[in-house]
Amino acid sequence: MNSSISSVAQIRSLLAGMPGPDAAASAAWAAREPQLTKPAGSLGRLEEVSAWLSAWQGRHPPAMIRPVARVFAGNHGVAALGVSAFPAEVTVQMVANFQRGGAAINQLCRTFGIELDVLALDLDRPTADFTQGPALDEAEFVAAFRTGMDAVPDGADVLVIGEMGIGNTTPAAAVSAALFGGEAADWTGRGTGVEGGALARKIEVVGQGVARHKGLSPLDILRCLGGRELAAMAGAVLAARLKRVPVLLDGYVTTAAVAALEAEVKGALDHCMVGHVSVEPGHRRLLAALGKTALFDLGMRLGEGSGAALAVGVLKAAVACHTGMATFAEAGVSDKDDA
Amino acid sequence: MNSSISSVAQIRSLLAGMPGPDAAASAAWAAREPQLTKPAGSLGRLEEVSAWLSAWQGRHPPAMIRPVARVFAGNHGVAALGVSAFPAEVTVQMVANFQRGGAAINQLCRTFGIELDVLALDLDRPTADFTQGPALDEAEFVAAFRTGMDAVPDGADVLVIGEMGIGNTTPAAAVSAALFGGEAADWTGRGTGVEGGALARKIEVVGQGVARHKGLSPLDILRCLGGRELAAMAGAVLAARLKRVPVLLDGYVTTAAVAALEAEVKGALDHCMVGHVSVEPGHRRLLAALGKTALFDLGMRLGEGSGAALAVGVLKAAVACHTGMATFAEAGVSDKDDA
Repeated sequence: MNSSISSVAQIRSLLAGMPGPDAAASAAWAAREPQLTKPAGSLGRLEEVSAWLSAWQGRHPPAMIRPVARVFAGNHGVAALGVSAFPAEVTVQMVANFQRGGAAINQLCRTFGIELDVLALDLDRPTADFTQGPALDEAEFVAAFRTGMDAVPDGADVLVIGEMGIGNTTPAAAVSAALFGGEAADWTGRGTGVEGGALARKIEVVGQGVARHKGLSPLDILRCLGGRELAAMAGAVLAARLKRVPVLLDGYVTTAAVAALEAEVKGALDHCMVGHVSVEPGHRRLLAALGKTALFDLGMRLGEGSGAALAVGVLKAAVACHTGMATFAEAGVSDKDDA
Repeated sequence: MNSSISSVAQIRSLLAGMPGPDAAASAAWAAREPQLTKPAGSLGRLEEVSAWLSAWQGRHPPAMIRPVARVFAGNHGVAALGVSAFPAEVTVQMVANFQRGGAAINQLCRTFGIELDVLALDLDRPTADFTQGPALDEAEFVAAFRTGMDAVPDGADVLVIGEMGIGNTTPAAAVSAALFGGEAADWTGRGTGVEGGALARKIEVVGQGVARHKGLSPLDILRCLGGRELAAMAGAVLAARLKRVPVLLDGYVTTAAVAALEAEVKGALDHCMVGHVSVEPGHRRLLAALGKTALFDLGMRLGEGSGAALAVGVLKAAVACHTGMATFAEAGVSDKDDA
């Protein structure tokens, strides 16, 4: 895309001009689906998935030949406050692991034929500690958002987004609390595995951040309490909408990042489905606030886009059923109405 | 296998001699998993899946190169009582559809590289109406059970089982009620789409069947209230256990069929996972009775093995993560304990 945005105001103007679902593709889906050799509705959410892909790819039949994944990595000032069970240098180590193909997301992308790219955002420059001031200034925020926009290729059939950033369930919790209200403790979980005093400290940090940054727009909440990888994921989701690429969201951090778009413009996430619901308790709460139901509930809490990548299998299955099944007429099968 | 069983007593003796999980493979899984570059437990049920595959394939690492699906079709005397929304000739029509590759299960098997075989069991000879007498006599039951046993190939990495049989949620409900107790209405759902008076009639038929066949062993419950495809699925699951092939169960009819094995010998289904939970309300109840949690809850109610075939994607992902991920040492990533 090579987007040229340079301000939050320009992001807002792109959001205002987003395309909606494709009515002709939806109508073509709805004309074919009831003819397929199965009781109406019996494929459940597989039917919802193929309908959604038609509407948001803007074509019928929908395709799932080229799924792509983009994983964004960032570092966080708040990581120095002891909010994670892992040291901050793990972010850069895991990016190297992604690049060598050794992480979970690599195996999942290989399994489902997903083209993976990893974008590390200024890992040597953590965001500012949001308990002391904004995590990012406008130029930094827009630069990260633009990196996300530019990462979305033309012609993808679905975009899987994911993240890596030691400490980043803390900004996810702070962004969620600021966007949707409630106590810091409601939104703060164990992340990679903090316990006891460290969890209490994490809740305190989230509460301090939310208290410090009050009365902001959703995009400014994302700027002041988020991080570079969160801004980039929001940018990728907006660019995907503009390019008619449906999106699979992953876990808590991913969903919190893009929730700011929905809070700015209702319907901004209508082209997104959620791959899985994370063990992180804030994720379930966030999905309820967004009115989304994840495809899977498998007790995962890894990030990296892993839960979204896993859902690509379901998308492939849904497209295969809608496009490949015989109709009652083709198969010579008696329909219910013939009985 | 070319099994030579000729009586229910012989089935019972095979059940008594079933192998358990492989302790050495499980130990090898448990030694590797904590070394992988992720927080411990963060892949949730993907970890459970790879552990289960190791234990029941009896090897480490587990493999998911050759998934196979076997779909069993049968016809039912009770179908003449108006318990289905579709006419009974649809069973044979759908078998032809499977054979031409036009059904949902064909698309799902293609999507996930699953080798599919469909076994039609005497479709021109429906079972007897179980409200009047046993659905099958012992010779018929054992023949169907043997067909299922013989359908399991050597060297499969997982067996997906599914079924087709107009009217067969009625025997599924009757078998479940007879095995686990409760009212006929608790176990009887809309199936392919019966409503109103037809649903009331279906509940009545289930209740009549259960009342007529009291005080039987689990295998005799399956014989008197089940059907040929149900007996065959039970046979396939037993043969898979003997051949160290883990099994993915599908929906209500599949689970009801094999529940008789667990009711005979506790642990008989430990080598089985459940692909999805069906919309059919009896399935959720049955899974609770068996202590099983399905991998998916996607609102499906098609049968054919469709929900189990969909889960093969999760099994492939689980194996890929466990076998392909780098260890902390290999990747030079700091573990939690290094923090």
